[in-house]
Amino acid sequence: MLTLFYAPNTCSLASHIVLEEIGADYEARRVDFSANAQRSPEYLAINPKGRVPALVTDQGVLTETPAILAFLAQSFPQVGLAPLGDLFAFAELQAFNSYICSTLHVAHAHKVRGSRWADDPAAHEEMRRKVPETVGACFELIENSMLRGPWVMGETYSVADPYLFTVARWMEGDSVDPARFPRVIEHRNRMMERPAVARAVAAQG
Amino acid sequence: MLTLFYAPNTCSLASHIVLEEIGADYEARRVDFSANAQRSPEYLAINPKGRVPALVTDQGVLTETPAILAFLAQSFPQVGLAPLGDLFAFAELQAFNSYICSTLHVAHAHKVRGSRWADDPAAHEEMRRKVPETVGACFELIENSMLRGPWVMGETYSVADPYLFTVARWMEGDSVDPARFPRVIEHRNRMMERPAVARAVAAQG
Repeated sequence: MLTLFYAPNTCSLASHIVLEEIGADYEARRVDFSANAQRSPEYLAINPKGRVPALVTDQGVLTETPAILAFLAQSFPQVGLAPLGDLFAFAELQAFNSYICSTLHVAHAHKVRGSRWADDPAAHEEMRRKVPETVGACFELIENSMLRGPWVMGETYSVADPYLFTVARWMEGDSVDPARFPRVIEHRNRMMERPAVARAVAAQG
Repeated sequence: MLTLFYAPNTCSLASHIVLEEIGADYEARRVDFSANAQRSPEYLAINPKGRVPALVTDQGVLTETPAILAFLAQSFPQVGLAPLGDLFAFAELQAFNSYICSTLHVAHAHKVRGSRWADDPAAHEEMRRKVPETVGACFELIENSMLRGPWVMGETYSVADPYLFTVARWMEGDSVDPARFPRVIEHRNRMMERPAVARAVAAQG
């Protein structure tokens, strides 16, 4: 039994989709960010980072999207969500996920989470102003150099796809023009045709 | 044959140490950041992100420290730098590395790379001002919740150790008082006693 702690509009959607894809026996529990529940003593006991996602397993708690995605792919090898028999291909998948968490997600976070990195409201405003440019630059790299098509890694769907889908949904909110990235948007649309994706999106509300 | 593209004082040191630990047949090639060589057409042909590290393998180029570290551990299983037979333990290792790349490294980068996220020099100054606090908060979490001791994952040395060592070397430069983090500093000192670590540090100069 697995329990995913999630919040809508966060990167936790990627893990949620993968749990649906593999048909895992799991429960999804919402963390109410509007009530700052991610900082509650109860939640901090689960994840001292005060973030989502957190995946509670029989062996303990896992955090960090790239780690959870690789863990699920490895734990359910029959679903084929990562090239487990090819170390280089697996590393490429991991590099993609690492880029999303360390660069694209970080660029996006400067829109509403500027207080993580500066105290002055004027600095937050400056950060917000640059988000369309920085997030746009990330999607440019993905569109032109990283997304192989039809799926991220090429012909085979993998855990990188729900992760790209998750962050690509932030594009319009970040004032990045989707028309600049037809391949990413085509990928996003194709993802929504998958029943597992639609179920996870609906469940998060 | 492997080729590591690196620059001093960057996270590429972690991969460099691991290459030394495993005794790999590799060449280390310095990218001259002072000449902005990471943005040269030659280097962008290797890594379109214009960053280090990049690891050139017989199968292609890998980027992103967590992906390279896991790849090296998996490719040289006899060295034992990751718990490859235990999916949960491997995921915990990956979560540690993911936290370093997406949170600690990012906090550190706001000191001299503020122009990634804002244009206004006043905003850069505001970011710089908060770095001791944000980087300090990361080390607090590592000191109290993540570093098991004596090594990151406990009794067994792994690829997480060179990564922690690499970012812990930035502490003083980020105006974070090392006295607050005796366990992290003890780990840093213990790392320097390893011949492979000393060789990589000396090679990067």
